Amino acid sequence: MKIQAYAAHGPGMPLEPFQYEPPALEASQVEISISHCGICHSDLHLLDNDWGITQYPMVPGHEIVGTVTQAGSAAKGFREGQRVGVGWEAGSCGECQYCLRGEENMCLDWRGTCTHGYGGYASAIRVDSRFVIPIPESMDSERAAPLLCGGITVYSPLARYAQPAMRAGVVGLGGLGHLAVQYARAFGCEVTAFSTSPEKEAEARSLGAHHFINTRDAGAVQSAANSFDFVISTVPADLNWGEYVNALRPKGTLCIVGAPQSDVRLPAFPLILGSKAVCGSAVGSPSQIRQMLEFSARHGIYPKTERFPMAQVNAALNRLRSNLARYRIVLAN
Amino acid sequence: MKIQAYAAHGPGMPLEPFQYEPPALEASQVEISISHCGICHSDLHLLDNDWGITQYPMVPGHEIVGTVTQAGSAAKGFREGQRVGVGWEAGSCGECQYCLRGEENMCLDWRGTCTHGYGGYASAIRVDSRFVIPIPESMDSERAAPLLCGGITVYSPLARYAQPAMRAGVVGLGGLGHLAVQYARAFGCEVTAFSTSPEKEAEARSLGAHHFINTRDAGAVQSAANSFDFVISTVPADLNWGEYVNALRPKGTLCIVGAPQSDVRLPAFPLILGSKAVCGSAVGSPSQIRQMLEFSARHGIYPKTERFPMAQVNAALNRLRSNLARYRIVLAN
Repeated sequence: MKIQAYAAHGPGMPLEPFQYEPPALEASQVEISISHCGICHSDLHLLDNDWGITQYPMVPGHEIVGTVTQAGSAAKGFREGQRVGVGWEAGSCGECQYCLRGEENMCLDWRGTCTHGYGGYASAIRVDSRFVIPIPESMDSERAAPLLCGGITVYSPLARYAQPAMRAGVVGLGGLGHLAVQYARAFGCEVTAFSTSPEKEAEARSLGAHHFINTRDAGAVQSAANSFDFVISTVPADLNWGEYVNALRPKGTLCIVGAPQSDVRLPAFPLILGSKAVCGSAVGSPSQIRQMLEFSARHGIYPKTERFPMAQVNAALNRLRSNLARYRIVLAN
Repeated sequence: MKIQAYAAHGPGMPLEPFQYEPPALEASQVEISISHCGICHSDLHLLDNDWGITQYPMVPGHEIVGTVTQAGSAAKGFREGQRVGVGWEAGSCGECQYCLRGEENMCLDWRGTCTHGYGGYASAIRVDSRFVIPIPESMDSERAAPLLCGGITVYSPLARYAQPAMRAGVVGLGGLGHLAVQYARAFGCEVTAFSTSPEKEAEARSLGAHHFINTRDAGAVQSAANSFDFVISTVPADLNWGEYVNALRPKGTLCIVGAPQSDVRLPAFPLILGSKAVCGSAVGSPSQIRQMLEFSARHGIYPKTERFPMAQVNAALNRLRSNLARYRIVLAN
């Protein structure tokens, strides 16, 4: 059986059709016929080798939805034809304390779906069944795909830090931010969206934001000092971190999920005097992804998607690069 | 009634005898005849106006123990002769959500014992009864004094973040660190002391540390990568923060209570990939100070102290400046 994929052969090069023969299905693996694969901003970073970890030929894609075509003898609970998904992570050691307690995303020997193998811009993929997630029946595949990485990336820190009576801020109203606003609202928080694009205010409000701050307004973030219990930064940019620390209330937490280019510089005194925290967060465990999908289905929380045929992957990537996607692009076979 | 104190009249100047007449006792206030006052490192910063907030004449001192000589009509629960203490904070608005839920140390209108009035290097002080803490009977006054600021500064973040099965690191084995080691051990943690002074290893172990890392050994902190669930930095210095973030296990927290000179620079990727946090922490509430004193008495957790007569305050301050104090100096009347 050959898998038809799209691969880049070097940094900045366009994707080209690429065919590979996977090794024999392992007992623990599930083979998935891919119907949809979301494009995540990190696919661009990997294609460009921004993080220095890319191996070429590189097949991106880690927001995969499809149907089971084969399940190995040890892949319990999966049946042919079942609709399933795969996110950022596709493997872990299975033996460390993090794996044992169901926090496989914290395993130091994690394997990425498209960093340690060929990813989801393809006709099919074979994945360790521990990282294969059933998709709720009520959820359509196109809108499920971006939740598997984009959704869990913002759901997980909100689930860890946010409480219903809190004031939450979401910085950036893109692929991650437009989901974070919805989750924060569903968690019961008073939600403020921060964006450089004032034209997104109406959409932010329709997604659940109570307030909108145009971060290009001089002094707008400064005047929000001492306002938020939790702020999540979804933009891959070097913010004025001191302003966002000051925007936190005492005991507040600033969570960074968009990787900035440079070190994060924090003023020490406001952190200490306000007993504040700055944290990062990396996707979520398979168990939490299941929980997130159920929560999303129950609350009707979905990404706004744009669909491209898989064969138009280069046009889709260019659209994302040009910051035109509103808000998650999904490739469809 | 006149209060005999010691005051500095400008940055870097020695303390001199200073007498002041306090305003009439307010109904909410307690008057305390001071028997002991600890010297905290922050007293030096205030004397030197390192933080730009010092008003002269400056009477330092915010680790006060003494006996009640008068209690205002609204100062419920205090009686003449009762042994009590006062820490860093001596006032707050009483109306915000933090005050209302007993987190007065997070009030934005906090008043410091020696930053918003004359402090404890004195014969007496008058303080809002909400910030007057009964001293457990079994605890002697000299060893109680440093707990009121130094003790609560490390107890509070440990109480917030540490759990019994965790591996905890304590950076710096001085006035704060030698208490943090004891609390972390009593909380059930596996404790590692980090110090630039290898000669302190035996003492660190006698205080409860299971392990000792000499941070002057090249590569010692680096080789502790992925080792700690919680690290508290008690040193007022610019550490290589990236090394300590790497020393955290996944989901670990680095807490800074010693104010560094410069901004804290953090590498973003290790924070994000490991879902790690860097936080600050500022003393504790009156309620938590009571809890901490009871916990300390029950577990026999005390500072190692050196006693100086109040009149030798300048010699005592010089000893602390020269980094010779082992580990907290207490002035006695």
